[in-house]
Formats: sequence, C-alpha cells, structure tokens
Amino acid sequence: MVGLDSLVDRHGEELVAELAQWCAIPSISTDPTYTADVRRSAEFLAGRLDAAGLAADLLDVPGSAPAVWAEWLGAGPGAPTITIYGHHDVQPVDPVSDWDNPPFEPAVRDGWLYARGASDDKGQIHFQLAAVRHLLATQGRLPVNVRFLVEGEEEAGSPNIDAFLAAHAGRFGCDVIVVSDTGMYAEGVPSLVTGMRGMAYFQLDLRTAEVDLHSGSFGGAVPNAAAAMVELLGRLRDDAGRIAIPGWYDDVVPLTAAEREQFAALPFDPVEFAATAGGVTALPGEAGFSPLERIGARPTVDVNGLWSGYTGPGSKTIVPAQAHAKVSFRLVADQDPATLAPLFEQWVADNAPLGAEVKVTSMGGVRPCLTPIDHPANLAAGRAIERAFGVAPLFTREGGSGPERALSDALGAPCVYVGAMLPEDRIHAPNERFKLSQYFAGLHAAVYALDELAGPDVAGALVAARPAG
Amino acid sequence: MVGLDSLVDRHGEELVAELAQWCAIPSISTDPTYTADVRRSAEFLAGRLDAAGLAADLLDVPGSAPAVWAEWLGAGPGAPTITIYGHHDVQPVDPVSDWDNPPFEPAVRDGWLYARGASDDKGQIHFQLAAVRHLLATQGRLPVNVRFLVEGEEEAGSPNIDAFLAAHAGRFGCDVIVVSDTGMYAEGVPSLVTGMRGMAYFQLDLRTAEVDLHSGSFGGAVPNAAAAMVELLGRLRDDAGRIAIPGWYDDVVPLTAAEREQFAALPFDPVEFAATAGGVTALPGEAGFSPLERIGARPTVDVNGLWSGYTGPGSKTIVPAQAHAKVSFRLVADQDPATLAPLFEQWVADNAPLGAEVKVTSMGGVRPCLTPIDHPANLAAGRAIERAFGVAPLFTREGGSGPERALSDALGAPCVYVGAMLPEDRIHAPNERFKLSQYFAGLHAAVYALDELAGPDVAGALVAARPAG
Repeated sequence: MVGLDSLVDRHGEELVAELAQWCAIPSISTDPTYTADVRRSAEFLAGRLDAAGLAADLLDVPGSAPAVWAEWLGAGPGAPTITIYGHHDVQPVDPVSDWDNPPFEPAVRDGWLYARGASDDKGQIHFQLAAVRHLLATQGRLPVNVRFLVEGEEEAGSPNIDAFLAAHAGRFGCDVIVVSDTGMYAEGVPSLVTGMRGMAYFQLDLRTAEVDLHSGSFGGAVPNAAAAMVELLGRLRDDAGRIAIPGWYDDVVPLTAAEREQFAALPFDPVEFAATAGGVTALPGEAGFSPLERIGARPTVDVNGLWSGYTGPGSKTIVPAQAHAKVSFRLVADQDPATLAPLFEQWVADNAPLGAEVKVTSMGGVRPCLTPIDHPANLAAGRAIERAFGVAPLFTREGGSGPERALSDALGAPCVYVGAMLPEDRIHAPNERFKLSQYFAGLHAAVYALDELAGPDVAGALVAARPAG
Repeated sequence: MVGLDSLVDRHGEELVAELAQWCAIPSISTDPTYTADVRRSAEFLAGRLDAAGLAADLLDVPGSAPAVWAEWLGAGPGAPTITIYGHHDVQPVDPVSDWDNPPFEPAVRDGWLYARGASDDKGQIHFQLAAVRHLLATQGRLPVNVRFLVEGEEEAGSPNIDAFLAAHAGRFGCDVIVVSDTGMYAEGVPSLVTGMRGMAYFQLDLRTAEVDLHSGSFGGAVPNAAAAMVELLGRLRDDAGRIAIPGWYDDVVPLTAAEREQFAALPFDPVEFAATAGGVTALPGEAGFSPLERIGARPTVDVNGLWSGYTGPGSKTIVPAQAHAKVSFRLVADQDPATLAPLFEQWVADNAPLGAEVKVTSMGGVRPCLTPIDHPANLAAGRAIERAFGVAPLFTREGGSGPERALSDALGAPCVYVGAMLPEDRIHAPNERFKLSQYFAGLHAAVYALDELAGPDVAGALVAARPAG
C-alpha cells in the first residue's frame, strides 16, 4: 500500500507516543472514581478521529459511560460499510505494586509498550485510527464507508449495550463489523478468531434448615447443606465431561471438519499450555475434543465460587444449613442464555437433593457468536492478515465472551475479528504490554482489511446480503 | 432432700444471675483472641468452688487452656469418689447478627436463659456447683468424695486432654466419672446417655493451579478446584448412606437387641424432630437404622465447611485454583481415630480427581465411649433422674463427642451422664439457651446422684471394682 511503510518508518515513534498519551488516561470503567477519566479517554479518541477527517461524537445512554461514534461515508451507498468495534475503557490495575512502571505512565522497553490498556484495547483501536487517518491523508478517501463504535464499559461487562444499541443502532448500520479486541494464537502464528463464547452465570443458594445444627446431636440424620450442594453440583457433568442438563446441546452448531482441521493445525504443546495455565498438571475436559476445541467451541461449566458452613481457622462441628455456589456456563453458537436459564432452573429443581431447597438467581447472560470460516468477510480478513503478517492465518475461536453477538444482532451484520494481541500481553494483569511489531503489523492489517473488503467480489456479496427495502 | 426446694424457691434468681455472670465471659477456646477470657472463665468457677468449701485450682499443660480442678474428700477412702466432668469454654458465635441478644450479654426470656454457653456447658456445670455448695452449706458434708474436672478446650476438641491427664490424672482419681455435658431426649422424657460418639476431624486443602484462571480463556480445558472438591466429596458415601472408605466399619460394636429396644421406646415423631432440627424437610441417612440410632450409635460424616473461588457479591469469571473443606466423622465404639486417619488419607489419595493435589490435615480425634446400660453406676444415675424428674429415664446414646473415653481410660473409671440439656437448646448455634426448669431439675438430679452413688450396694460395687494395691 502506497506510503504505509513510509508512515511506519517516518512516523512510527509519533504513533506510539500518541498511543502512550491515550494510555496515560486511567479510564477504569468499573470504578466510579475514574468516571471523568473515562470521558476524557473518549474525548481524546473522538478528537483524533475528528482531526483525521471523520465526523465524530460521544454517545451514551442514561447511566452508561460514553462511547465514541465516528463515521466517514464518502465511499457512497453502493460500497460496503464497515463498523470498527472496540473499547477505550480499561481493567483495574491492582495489585499496583506488581507493575514495573506505573500503569498509567506508559514506558517503552525492549520493543514493547507497557501500560494498562496498551493491548486491551487502546492499542488495537489506535492502529485502526492510524490506518484510517493514513488513508484519508494520503488518498483523500477510504475504499469503503467506515464507522467506529468504541465503547466505554466493556471491562464492566457492557451492562448497557442493549439499551445503547436500542437508542443508537442507526448510527452504526453496516455490512460487516470489524472487531478489534481479540488476539492471535502466538507470535509467528497469525490467526483469525471466528467466534466468541457466550455465558450464562448463576448463583445457587441452597438451604436445608433454618439454622446450622450440631453435628453431634444431628449429624447423620439430617440433610447437610454443604453435602447437598456437593451432591447437586456433582451431577452437573456426566462421565464424559458433558453437561448433564437435558436439552443443553440442542442448539449447539457442530464443529465442521474444516474448522477441526484448523484447530488441529494450531501448534499446541500441552506442557507449555499447562505452564501458561498456572501450572496445572492435567487437562481434563469433554471427551472427544481437544483442549483448544473445548475452550473455543464447546459448552463448558465452571464452579466460580463455593461457600458453606464454617470457613475460619480451626474446627467447628456444625451441620451447615446453607450452601452457596456461583456457577457459570460458557455457551457456543447458537445457544441462547435466555433459552438455557429455564433448563438449568428445571434441572436444579429436578436434582435438588432430598431436604434441600435451592434458589437459582440469574446473574447475567451473553449470547455466543460465530461467523463461518468461509464467509466472504472472513476470507477477506484472512487475506489482509496474510498480507500484513506474511503468513496465512489459521481460523480459531475465542473462549471469552463479549458484546459481539449483541452488536451483530442489532446491526444485522456479521463480525470479523482483526486483532493483534499476543497471549503474553498480560491483559487484565500487572505489566500489561503490547509488542510494537504487532502494533505495526496490526496497522498494516487494518489498512489491508479495508482494501480487501472493498474488493469487487466481497463488496458485491456484502451489498447483495443487505435486507431488501 | 432437705432444703433443696427452698434453695430453688428462695435463691433461684441468684443462681441464674451467677450463671449469667459466668456466661458473660466469652471463653471461646478455638480463637486465640479470647485466650485471656478462657482464663477468666476458669478463675470465675474456681473462685466459686473454693468459696463453697472445696479445694480448687487452675491446672494446665504447656499450650493448653486452663482447666479447673477442685475436690472435697471428706467422705473418706472407704466411700466412692466421684469426678464431675464438664467444660467452661464455649463455641464461636458467628453469625452474630442472628442472635436476638448479644451472645455474651445473657438475657432471660420466657423461662429461658439466652447466652453462648448457657446450656453447653456452663449451665450444666453450674448446677453441679450449686448442688455441692448446697449440700456443704446445709449438711457440712457430701455423701461421697467429689472432684471436679472442668476443662477449657472441649469445644476445640480437647486437643491436650491426653497430655493433661498424663500430667494430672492423680488429681482426679475416682470410681465413677459423672459427665455433666449431655442432654435429655425431650422435656418430659428424661433419658440417660450411655455412650458418646468419637470424632475424626480433617481439613482438606485442594489445589489445581498456582493462580485462579480466566474462565473464558481456560474454562473447560483445565481442572477446576471447586469442581474437583465436589467430585472428591461426592464419593464419601455410597448409595446406602454408608461411608465409602475401605475398612471404616471394621471396629464398630453392633447395637444389642436391648439397646435397640430402648431406642425404639423413645417417642419419636419425625415431624417434631424435623422442627427441632431447624425445620429440615427430610431425614436422610444410613439405610437400616432409625434416625436416633444413626445419631447415637452409627458412624457418620459431615461436611462442616466448604470454600473456594469467588464468594463476594456479583459475578467473577474465574476457574478457582484452590478449594478447601472441613470434613468430620463421628465414630462409635470401638472405632479409633488413630486407626481411621490413615484410612481416610489413603482414600483421599486414591480418589483425588485428575489434576488435583489434596493435602489432608488432621484437626483432632476423639475416641468414642460406651458404658453398658446395666452398669451399677448407670442404674444409680437412673434412680437419681427418676427422683428429680418424676419419670424413669430411657437409656440412649449421645451423638456428640467429648473427651469421656480419654478420661475413662486415664482414670480407670466408667462414665455416667447426668445432663439436663434439651434438644431445642440450640447449642453451637445462634440464640443458645437453657430452660430454667431443666436447670433446676438438673440441680436436683445432681444432688440425688451423689446420694444414689453413696447407696450401700452401689458404693460397695464401685469400691470392690477398684484395682488391687
């Protein structure tokens, strides 16, 4: 692309300095202390998009943090419209003493930019900004229409995304959503995410009696809430590691042979993976699927928290009257938490041990999303990655959950994922960082993605897929 | 007994006030915060015994809480010597918000004294003190020699009882141990305990990784510590409700036909029992035994506490790296915790789920004990109960555990159990209480027990049973 290498060569330091300036704003969305900083962060980005030649503004709904909207529609209605999605808010920074430089005083060391938000997600939005700015500056136009939706509360679980989209979806109408908030499998192994898991999170409150009982006076003849919770949770999975709730898998889209080939092609060293996973010594899971398939493409359940009875030092001889658990399910396309919650509630009712009353409280649901690997937009994104990174990417899936499906449904467009994070970026942890070579390759991929999505076959397919009227 | 009714009529309020004063001392032995209070509690009792005319002192061994020793040996060597056993320490009080009055600010309501320790065990030791004090005050003597051993760490599982007895057994030599730390079957159904269960208490610390993991990035492909603990604990019992540890029942003395008849003669209304048991709605337990037999005479297991992962408000999407449980077994004659602990440890090693490392920490063992229902001291105690409560008692067994077997072995004497607690006393739970009518009837029974044990046939049998030399 004309001038792109020259941009990096001549202005690379300026770009990193601008990103560092943005990262210096502590836009922590989960802590009300930083409400004004989240707004400053949005203003910073909107100002840069405006200066680049896009219309830009801050949007919100009551009670939410501001999102950044921007658009350039100069390619005309016959060209595809791309909405670039990401977020400008960041995770908390504790334990702050574990950071080598203060989290909001960005520092470049050994080819990495260290700062909270450097990778997740300011760095990944910044290279999208830089890509669009470069094209407008050098060519006076973009190959497609481009919109930005950069939200301010993704790290808080996007609690207002549905209300936001209900109010503002018209500003973000598009043919493809380019998600710029995911990572690559490994440095040197470029990959392209095709789906993210959903989630259904519950709290179980189990009660067997009004008060704890003396285990000498009653133990052996009365229900024990802790043991009842153990019994209940013990039935959640069958011997093959599958979730034992009737109907749970009804809407699961099976992995295709082509997808399984892609998963199998990813280099996977169980020992290295176990080391990354906090030093686990085994990789148990659903029979018949590899660890990567289990994480990305299969329904799973985790007990996230568990408490009952006496948990202090020493001993206390009680039969606990109450037990509590936080249980969350990761979902895959096309599972829907709204459909599954009643199945789980019914299962709990059917499996509650004798003498145990169990209350189920839903604590949030996120729908999974999936764009088939042979979708024209995925293929276009794949070509962009190959041009930027020099290697054809492998298609994979991300185990985490975000608002992508909500966006996709509200905007009526599929998601493609152009991300350049690495697993070693330490997102959500101390010493978060972004590798500058990944940043610059990501910038290239962002430019090439717009180019590839404007290609006549892709653009034609995208425009043809628009709803009539 | 001369003057006994008059004592209750004229000084009943003073007795209750004195007991309340003792209960105001927070002698929680399991929490080092209260070490000084446990000592104050011992001093309170020793002072009252001394004032009553007994020699009294505090005794301990290094690292232990102080026990109270007292004695009056004026009946001479030809008369039986009775050692009255109980404890002055109390259980923790959490959840303290469930108490109607603060646990260490005793209150009398509707004929009950409410306070931690009111029933277990200060109330039951206090009527023994009142009985002895009354006899010495009104008659200048007791019908038998009397010693007191009131320990300060029973609620901690009497961890130092063996060392204590090794150091001090000579101070407590006796022909019968009168245990004043058990209850009656029901108000209006006096009963006499003949045995207590033993205990083996353990903490399990299970670990699957060095740190909690993100359930999106890893969930489904790595071990979950909470789920692993659920799996492990779920294997503890078989489908018949029996403990599934190999060898666990090898030393269990079967119930005799006579004992089962006594158990069957106790009036048992499942609905009423369930109401007493905190409103439980089912009575699960070992197949083939009645609820009362399960509690008194069969090995059982309870999960006393359980904790893992995130237990705060809201949701956190982690795969917990650690899970912890407190698990205790009640034992019956002649099971021995020293024999059983290695069986449990082996079972844990054999059943630890894949990827889970489990540390087993023994937190105390108590041997079970049993005095045959036709022992002369049991029959004498039965007559005392009949005189005090107006009804012949039924013989039963207590599900709780204490150091009785250790005492019995160290002192070479059998235990009889003169207790007046009721099942609705809420011992170990919020709003512990002692019914004042039971307190006063217990005081009568304590006086009559000394009288009955001094009867010529019983005294003769007890003295004759002394070892030669």
